[in-house]
Formats: sequence, C-alpha cells, structure tokens
Amino acid sequence: MSGEASTQEFSRETLENVLKRRFFFAPAFELYGGVSGLYDYGPPGCSFQANVIDIWRKHFVLEDDMLEVDTTMLTPYEVLKTSGHVDKFSDWMCRDLKTGEIFRADHLVEEVLESRLKGDKEARGLVSNANADAQEEADKKKRKKKVKEIKAVKLDDEVVAEYESVLAQIDGYSGEELGELMVKYDIKNPVTNEPLEAPKPFNLMFETAIGPSGQLKGYLRPETAQGQFLNFNKLYDFNNLKMPFASAAIGKSFRNEISPRAGLLRVREFLMAEIEHFVDPENKKHERFDEVKDLELTFLSKEVQQAGLTTPTVTTVGEAVKTGLVDNETLGYFLARIYQFLIKIGVDSTRLRFRQHMANEMAHYATDCWDAELQTSYGWIECVGCADRSAYDLTVHANKTKEKLVVRQKLDTPRVITQYEIELEKKKFGPKFRKDAPIVEKWLLSLSQDELVKYREQLQASNSFKFTIDGIEGEQELDSSFVKIELVTKTEHVREYTPNVIEPSFGIGRIIYSIFEHRFWTRAESSERGVLSFPPIVAPTKVLLVPLSNNEELQPIVKEISRVLRKEQIPFKVDDSGASIGKRYARNDELGTPFGITIDFESVKDGSITLRERDSTKQVRGDVKSIIQAIKEITYDGINWEEGTKELTPFETKAEDDE
Amino acid sequence: MSGEASTQEFSRETLENVLKRRFFFAPAFELYGGVSGLYDYGPPGCSFQANVIDIWRKHFVLEDDMLEVDTTMLTPYEVLKTSGHVDKFSDWMCRDLKTGEIFRADHLVEEVLESRLKGDKEARGLVSNANADAQEEADKKKRKKKVKEIKAVKLDDEVVAEYESVLAQIDGYSGEELGELMVKYDIKNPVTNEPLEAPKPFNLMFETAIGPSGQLKGYLRPETAQGQFLNFNKLYDFNNLKMPFASAAIGKSFRNEISPRAGLLRVREFLMAEIEHFVDPENKKHERFDEVKDLELTFLSKEVQQAGLTTPTVTTVGEAVKTGLVDNETLGYFLARIYQFLIKIGVDSTRLRFRQHMANEMAHYATDCWDAELQTSYGWIECVGCADRSAYDLTVHANKTKEKLVVRQKLDTPRVITQYEIELEKKKFGPKFRKDAPIVEKWLLSLSQDELVKYREQLQASNSFKFTIDGIEGEQELDSSFVKIELVTKTEHVREYTPNVIEPSFGIGRIIYSIFEHRFWTRAESSERGVLSFPPIVAPTKVLLVPLSNNEELQPIVKEISRVLRKEQIPFKVDDSGASIGKRYARNDELGTPFGITIDFESVKDGSITLRERDSTKQVRGDVKSIIQAIKEITYDGINWEEGTKELTPFETKAEDDE
Repeated sequence: MSGEASTQEFSRETLENVLKRRFFFAPAFELYGGVSGLYDYGPPGCSFQANVIDIWRKHFVLEDDMLEVDTTMLTPYEVLKTSGHVDKFSDWMCRDLKTGEIFRADHLVEEVLESRLKGDKEARGLVSNANADAQEEADKKKRKKKVKEIKAVKLDDEVVAEYESVLAQIDGYSGEELGELMVKYDIKNPVTNEPLEAPKPFNLMFETAIGPSGQLKGYLRPETAQGQFLNFNKLYDFNNLKMPFASAAIGKSFRNEISPRAGLLRVREFLMAEIEHFVDPENKKHERFDEVKDLELTFLSKEVQQAGLTTPTVTTVGEAVKTGLVDNETLGYFLARIYQFLIKIGVDSTRLRFRQHMANEMAHYATDCWDAELQTSYGWIECVGCADRSAYDLTVHANKTKEKLVVRQKLDTPRVITQYEIELEKKKFGPKFRKDAPIVEKWLLSLSQDELVKYREQLQASNSFKFTIDGIEGEQELDSSFVKIELVTKTEHVREYTPNVIEPSFGIGRIIYSIFEHRFWTRAESSERGVLSFPPIVAPTKVLLVPLSNNEELQPIVKEISRVLRKEQIPFKVDDSGASIGKRYARNDELGTPFGITIDFESVKDGSITLRERDSTKQVRGDVKSIIQAIKEITYDGINWEEGTKELTPFETKAEDDE
Repeated sequence: MSGEASTQEFSRETLENVLKRRFFFAPAFELYGGVSGLYDYGPPGCSFQANVIDIWRKHFVLEDDMLEVDTTMLTPYEVLKTSGHVDKFSDWMCRDLKTGEIFRADHLVEEVLESRLKGDKEARGLVSNANADAQEEADKKKRKKKVKEIKAVKLDDEVVAEYESVLAQIDGYSGEELGELMVKYDIKNPVTNEPLEAPKPFNLMFETAIGPSGQLKGYLRPETAQGQFLNFNKLYDFNNLKMPFASAAIGKSFRNEISPRAGLLRVREFLMAEIEHFVDPENKKHERFDEVKDLELTFLSKEVQQAGLTTPTVTTVGEAVKTGLVDNETLGYFLARIYQFLIKIGVDSTRLRFRQHMANEMAHYATDCWDAELQTSYGWIECVGCADRSAYDLTVHANKTKEKLVVRQKLDTPRVITQYEIELEKKKFGPKFRKDAPIVEKWLLSLSQDELVKYREQLQASNSFKFTIDGIEGEQELDSSFVKIELVTKTEHVREYTPNVIEPSFGIGRIIYSIFEHRFWTRAESSERGVLSFPPIVAPTKVLLVPLSNNEELQPIVKEISRVLRKEQIPFKVDDSGASIGKRYARNDELGTPFGITIDFESVKDGSITLRERDSTKQVRGDVKSIIQAIKEITYDGINWEEGTKELTPFETKAEDDE
C-alpha cells in the first residue's frame, strides 16, 4: 500500500463518512430509529466479510485439516448453566434510581477518570483547549459518551498517578471493587450528578423460550465454543481416534451489551470464528511449530502490565516459547498463525500486538490467554483471543451428563498406577433402587479419587455412607454389602485423559473495522479523496470496468470483458455512468477496488485496454488476455504489481483530476 | 451418477444410519438429551453446506450482479408488527387439557385421516398387514408420529373420497376450519383418546428482550427478507438509482415449531438464502429471459390442485409465461434459475416440480407463489419458495415510518395526471403544534388519495376536520386556514412508484436433506455398501489419498501429493489406517468422496498413481500431474469422467471386495 497513508493525519469522521456513503455498514433498523449495538453490512461490507471468512477457512481449516462444524445458536439453559455462563457471564451495571438510566460500571469509571485526567492536562496547559474541545465533541457524537463536558481542574500529582494505575487495570476489577472505586473517587451520573446504585451483575445472554409450552428456557449462544465441546466424542471418532486435532466453527454469537458504543467494535450480534484445538495436557508440542518458530511477534506480558507499563517485547515465537513467555508450542503456533492471517487480510503489522491477560481479568475457564490487539482510534482493541481453556469445559459437561469425554491412548510402555477403585455388588442395586438403579450405578462409577477417599473413610467409620443424586429424591445410603472401595495397584495399557483445549477465537467485525482504519488514507491533493487500500484478495470488488464514454461503439468490448471476468469468477462492476473518469475512479477508491480497466476508442481499433492500480494510480496497457492474467496473478497468487505487469506497457496519461 | 441408484429400493433407515455414522449431522445437545428441532452439522455436512452456499453465491449473486447484505437476526417488535408477523405468523395448536400435550392442528388432522385411510386399505386387503406394520413402525420411530396404531377399519367410499379431498387441501385451512374438521371427524388425542381444545394460534417467533432494561421487546427473525426491505433506499442508492435490481442475504432464521419432526425438514433454526428482486410493477420483463426460455420445467398449477389432482404439466418456461401459467418473465426467469441451481448441486430432475400455491394457502403478503418441491420419502417437500410479494412490504414500512421507499423514474414522455393535493399554511403550524409541528406536517403530506377525499368532504361540510396521530396525545383539529385540499391537474416528468418484489427463498437444510435422499444408493453386491453420489463440486471432500500400506517407502509420495492438492486448494483426506483398501473406499463412498488416489509400490518406482471414480469404481493410471489435472477439470469445470480421463490409461484390478 502507499506510503502516503501514514503521512497524513487520520480522521475517524472522514472514514466513517466514506463507510456510510458506500454502505459498508449502517445501523440496523435505521428507518425505525435504530437499535444500539445492531448493524447491517451493505454490499461492500458483506463481500469483504465473505472474503475474510473464505481466507480464514483456507488458512486455518484447510491448511491444518480442522473439522469444521455448524452448531445451533439456540442453546438450552442446562448447557450454559454447566459451562458457567448462567452464573458468571455478566458485566457490572449501576442504575440511576431517579432517571432509570443504566451505566456499565467499568466503562463509567474509565470514562470519568479519563475525563478528569484530560481536565488536568488542560489546567496544566498541556493541550490546547480548542483542540481538546473539538476532539471531545467528535468523540461525544460518535461514541455516545456519558461525560458531556471536560472541566479544566488540576489534580495532585499522586492522584494523577493513582488514576493512571486504575485505568491500566480497569479490565480486572470485580463488581465490589468497582463499587469501592466509585465511592472513593466520588463517581456519579456525569449528567445529573445523582448518586448511582452499587454495581449489580447483568447477565449478557439473550434469553428465550423453546417450544410451545414456554417451559424450556434457552439462550442465544454467547460463543460458538460450547457446541464444539458437546460434539467432542463424535469429532474424535470422525478423526479416527487420532490426537491432537482441532474443530472449528464460523457463526453468529450474541451478547446483550449494557450500553453498546464504539460502532462495530462493541455490538450485540456478531460473527465469530473459533477453533478448539484438543491436545494432550502432557504434551502440548505442535508438529508444525518449526515452520513458524522464526516469526517475530510483539508481546506484552502480564508482568509488564502489572508493573503499570506498556512496553512490548519483540521476539521470535521460538524464543518466546523457549523462555516460557508463551507457555507451550501449540499456543505459540497459533499466535504465529493468527499473525499471518491478520497480515494477509490487511492488518498493519506495526499496529498489532499480543497482550497477555493478567490473572484477574482472565475468563473464568482460562489458565492462560493472549489477545491479538489492533490499534485503532479507539485505542488497542482485542480482536482475537487465544486462550488455554485447560480441561475445564469437557470436564464440567462430563460431570454433569455422566458421559465420558475422554481420549484413550494406547501406551507403548504399560504403566503401573495405584488408585482407589469402587466395586459394586450389582445384583443388590435393582431390588433397592428399582428404576433408579442404573443412575445410581453410573454416579458411583464416576466418583473422583477425592470422593472415593471421603466415602471410604465413612465406610470404615460407620460401615455405610450417605449421598444425594440430582434427579433422585431424598438422601441415599449404602453399606459395605453394596460397595467396596479399595486401593488397587494395576498395570495400565491404556491411558485415559481429558484433553486440554487451546482456543483461538476471532471477532470478525472488530478485525474488519480495524482493517478499515489501518487501510484508510486520503490523497495528498485533497482530504476529500479517500482511499481504502485493501489487499486485492479481500477487496469487495476486484475490478471496475470503465468505458471512456457512453458511445455504443464501446459496448461490445465491455460485454466481452464482462463475460471473461464472469467466467474467471473475478468480482467486478461496470460503471457506465456519465461521470468523469476521475470521479468514477474516486468513487471506487472509496470502495477499495484495486484495479480499474479503461476502455477507449483505441480499444475498438486494436483491442488494447488500460489497467490502473488504485494506490499508485499507475497504469499499464495491453490486450484483454494479458491484463486479466495480471489481475488474477496479483489478486489470487500474491504477486506484486511490478512483477505482475512487467510484460505490459507503461501508460502515461494526464493527471486524473483533469480527466 | 450410476443407474443402480434407481433400481434398488430406497431405505430411509439405511441412509440415516450412514448420515449419523459419518456425522453429516446429529441432534444438537444430544449429550443433554437433545432439543427437538435443533441439529448440528458435523464436518461433512458443514462442508457440503458451505459448498452449496458457495455455488449459490456464484450462481445467483455474482452471475446477476445482486447486492448481498448481511443483516441482523435480532429484530425489534415494531418491525415485525408492521410486517404482519406479530399478528399472522402463527400455526394452530390444540392442547390436551388433561395431559398438557400440545398438537399442531393441521398435522394432527392430516396424520389421523391418513392413518384411517391406511386402516381402510388394510381392511380392504389392499396392503399386507406385515408390510404396513413394519413401515408404520419405522415411521413412528423416525417421525415421532402421534398416531401409534393403525386400525384395520373399512370406510365408506364417500368418506374415503372426502378424506382424500381434505388431505389435498390440508395446507389451506384456517384455525376455525381445522376446529370444524376435528369435530366433524371426531379427532382426539390419538394416544389417550381425550378431547382436545379448539385450535388456538401460536406465534412461531422466538421472543427476547434487547438491552439491560428489558423494555425493548424483540424477536429472532423468521426470514431474512425484512432486513433487505428496510435497507431498500440504501441499496437503490448503492445501485446508482438503476432499476430493476436484486438484493440477497444468506443467514440463519428461526421458527419455534410446535412439534418438529421429520429430521432436517422441519427445524427451529435453519439456514436460508433469500433474494429480493425489486421490479417496476408495470414492467416485469427480464432482460435475460431469452437465455432460459427454452428450459422445460414441471408445473403443478393451482387449477389442477383445486380440482383435487396432482398431474403436472411439462412445458418450457417461455410457453408457461406466454400462456399465463406463470405470471411474468421475472418470475419465470427465477424458476428457471432455481431449476439450474438445484440440478447443479445434485437434485434429481425427475423428483423436482414447481407447485403453485392455491389462493387459500398463500402467505399473507403474496400475490402469486410457486414452490420448488423435491420428492423424498416424506413426500413432496417445499424447498424453495418463489413469491411475488407485490409492493406489500415496502408499502407497510413506508406507511409506518413515514419514510418514502420509492423509485423515481424520469419519464421520456411527461404524463398528465389529475389528483388531490394538500397545501399547508406552514407558518401557522409552529404556534399551534409547537414541537409536534414537523410530525403533523409530515403526516398530512403522506395522506393517501382516499384520505384526502375524506378530509376534503369534512372541510367542505364543516370547514374543519379531526384526526389523531400516533405519538401525539389527543384528537387534533384543523380548519381551512391551515390546509387546502384541491384537485390539481399537472404534468409529471418523473414517475414515482413503489417497486414490486419477486422473492426466491431457499431453505438450505431441506435442499441438502433431499439431495442426500436423491443421491443415496447401495451397491448391488451388498445393501450394507451405501454410496452418496454427490456431484464432485458439492462433495465435502474431493479426494481420498490411500497408500496401499503403512510402509515408510510410500510416505514421501503421500506428502508430495498432499502438498500439491493443498496448493491447488482441492479438499482431500489421507487414510493411512490399517484397514483394507476396499474398506477404506467403502467408508469414503458413504462420505460421497468422488475420487480415490491409490499409492502403491509401483508409484515409488515410476511416480504413477491410480485414480478411482466412486460411482463406477472405474480406475485409470497416470503421473501425479495428469491425475490432478483430471480431478480439477471434472470437479470444477464440469467435464465428465470419460472426457477428463481420456489421456490416462485404464487400470484393471481385482474386485474391490477381495482387496
């Protein structure tokens, strides 16, 4: 892409005008006043998204033989209760009891402290008032900020330091801690200055009822992961019982955000692409690690963040795994693959970093987690999470359903183990428990070592033990004529284990918006001439066909080139409007169309056409076949412009503006 | 595909076992006991679906320059209230007050009458008892039938005729009519014989609440269409104000079916692909109609059905439009394109018909509708609807929101029209209505001709008229000092009209299941050897790589071929399990993999490999490059096996079973 992009100042407002004018996306239900957090993708946005998904599928699923599944969004209560989402998938909200307005607690604290720090800078004369006001005004319009006014009030140096430290850790506070911060720093409704209720948890899942009786409670999934975990046995079987392997899913998920803002970056319905890589917890090596080990990435470790710093480390993936910065090869492999994917679809590598989660901000299931963050005008945004979920999910679902979700590995050398085992006197269970007998037997056979120790002690003390089972009424009791619990030493030829899960999880909308920012620039000649410099492979349309005029003589060539492009399945548009060539190209610069083909009266005579490159506006001339060959090679084979057009004739024309 | 398919008897049970064993799809949340009407696609099903979608996009969106959008599933109440779904998108349910069991009324009537007709046939000795029982048993297991037992009771001839006539019209009855049928034919709970409540409407939309306050009621969309209509102005603008044009959307929709059965054919969450073609109501010609006019289709008109018959008419699309069987060219064009698409992805043309909706079964918005129906073991199934929705949707949304959703067409010859017009004395509105003034003005300017006539009469009678406006409290009154309503004759240079919409709407899951039935057969040598004869272009995996043994000598060639296939982006799998070649191919016949490549010790010597064709089990031998070239041409360029392999050497081997 052109170097001009980085030399001009980025204006979010200019970009947003382009994205709106060209219908990349728009607020959903705008005709009805809109619903915050819901957006529709128009034709160029939809096509861009489809290209990103297509590349994702080839880069991850095809390349690493992943097992893609498509599971339902509607999810029954029981599944998400087990996974922990019913109890823990919440944000903290606080209500203004007078106005009924609802705030997301962490965002409110963040915003108020940030505005006070800005006011402090102003008071210290560190920013010009006018500039700050203009920026704030623009921000307010776009981000629906709660804080409407910045007051120039100087703060004590230690208060500034304290605020900055709080902000660095803002993602990590509990509801109680947020409540304490609000009291300590006197944070109220920024508009009315009324006090707010203490933060309460608000579950982010959309609830619904399945079936006509209304009795089966369900949710819209908050992630695609659970559908993959629940199919583990079928997938493992499909993979001919080979380990490790990965499943993948692409689909919409839903989060009922308290107060969505920041456009595509925080929405209530969004496209995700998730991989669940199932791996032996005792061996997280990756067979293709060598292929990526020399790739240099930018890491921001938890230690650095806990020290209140943001200075990243740049090192190779190989080094990072060797030094323990990244826990294991599989995690490292995926970080590298994520990097390669993001660069391929147009992310600016200088605005991409991998940030490790701090202990207090980790999702409830994760044991280690790195986010690929992209820098935008909203700050550094989490776009891909890469978490080691350990054996958490498979374990909780197995415990709940009493179905095994395990791998059975044949051991080359058998191993001797000593453990407690339970033995049932089965013929006595039927008479005692009747229809519940199979449930009780299954429950007993699934007891953990710790539970076996506990019940064994009770048996030794009183010759019986008591227990309750979900779904069976009352307390049960068994004596030693029913069960024996003994320490057994035996030789195992098969090792049974619950796989760990490494999960790269992509928020496609966030990635797409970040690429829009990374690839947007305006031409030196006019700040009105925006360009979206997408890599050709993701550009919504690859070619614009531009006949010089509406003259009928040019029509047969336009038709013929259209036919060829369609046959080659190269997405293109014809613009035979009366607008000047310059205007037509300007329109398509905004759409990010990488190539333009001009058909003129020379074309009628000798069949030659002109090919224009979007970023440099360079042009070459040649016959239809060679030009289309060049387009194909540059778009789909990753060849650069110089290489792809070296057989074609450079073509000079007067400046585009004059055309 | 092989002719064997049609000569052997189809067994749904055998097919379902294959689909389950190979994880094409499975009940969702099976680990938790499942939720009826929800299914997950495993890897082969997911990949098949992705291929179908890819072909759909190329066949419709790319080929006809449609504007694809991706709009949200969450939809606010107001939108679906306006579209009519809140009031009318219901099925009729009746409840057994004793057991609480809920039945879908039309399905119950259908099933009970069908079972009585079966019992009648049995009593007349027209079917053997054993056969009928076995079929019924299988049906019960698979379809969760409510009627558990067929009683051999002979019916009067006129009763048989009456039942048959009711069944032919079963899709067209209102709730009241269904209630009357239940009384007339004494239809009760088939298991308990308890009486049922009269049918009540049950709205099929899933309800949820958007945002933290719980006050914004919303639904999961029942179709993708509304999101496209609401974006009409943006799309029309994006299309440079050219007409006609089409938008398209691919995405999940949701229907809370009362009692889902019949596997993938009736589910609660499903993938749709919908086109909304916006067209001038006065000109429904289609510029590419000539390209399809000679295509012969099978039509079942409403007249034939109303006469209680099912004999279709086979004729060309051109003839059908000319004779008025199909209303217009655009509708005819889409029927033809639907046909071509379905054949391309593997539908059996002899089991495809286009059935016209009868007046009483038409959706509330449609003025004409044809369904592409596919014949399966469940009967003829609606898989694609192709409706002319007229101007219904754009009109209701425009009326509700007071935003114009129209096309402005420059007229070549201006036309003279005479109509009532309203003139406002604007400066008087502010003082009278204050902040509501703009709303009142907008409301007045959007009045229809009929309303203008009404208010004009009131003005003439009493010098004033009264009205109420949504959102403004109380009744309003205006006299003739505020408004004038007069008949005006003027010359229009622009014609303003609301486009009509032709909507082809695809139920992807139903199409996929039907193709599974159409393409499934078992080899003559064993009813256990199932084959899914998918066209290569939609097959989940294109190539199976089979090294003859695990010998290490063969590994380098397997790796090299894998590398080439990956580079060419041809989906493939390696099967280096110890199973016999015959077993490995049998497994992949079930997966519908069209090609097998065998690598043997000859390959090590001279680099030659064997290519096997799934349906015929024919084999040819050649070098890697030629074999892969043949695979590419047959899969992606639609060349047949004989043509694609004519340069390769036929290869004879002993029968597969012996291998």
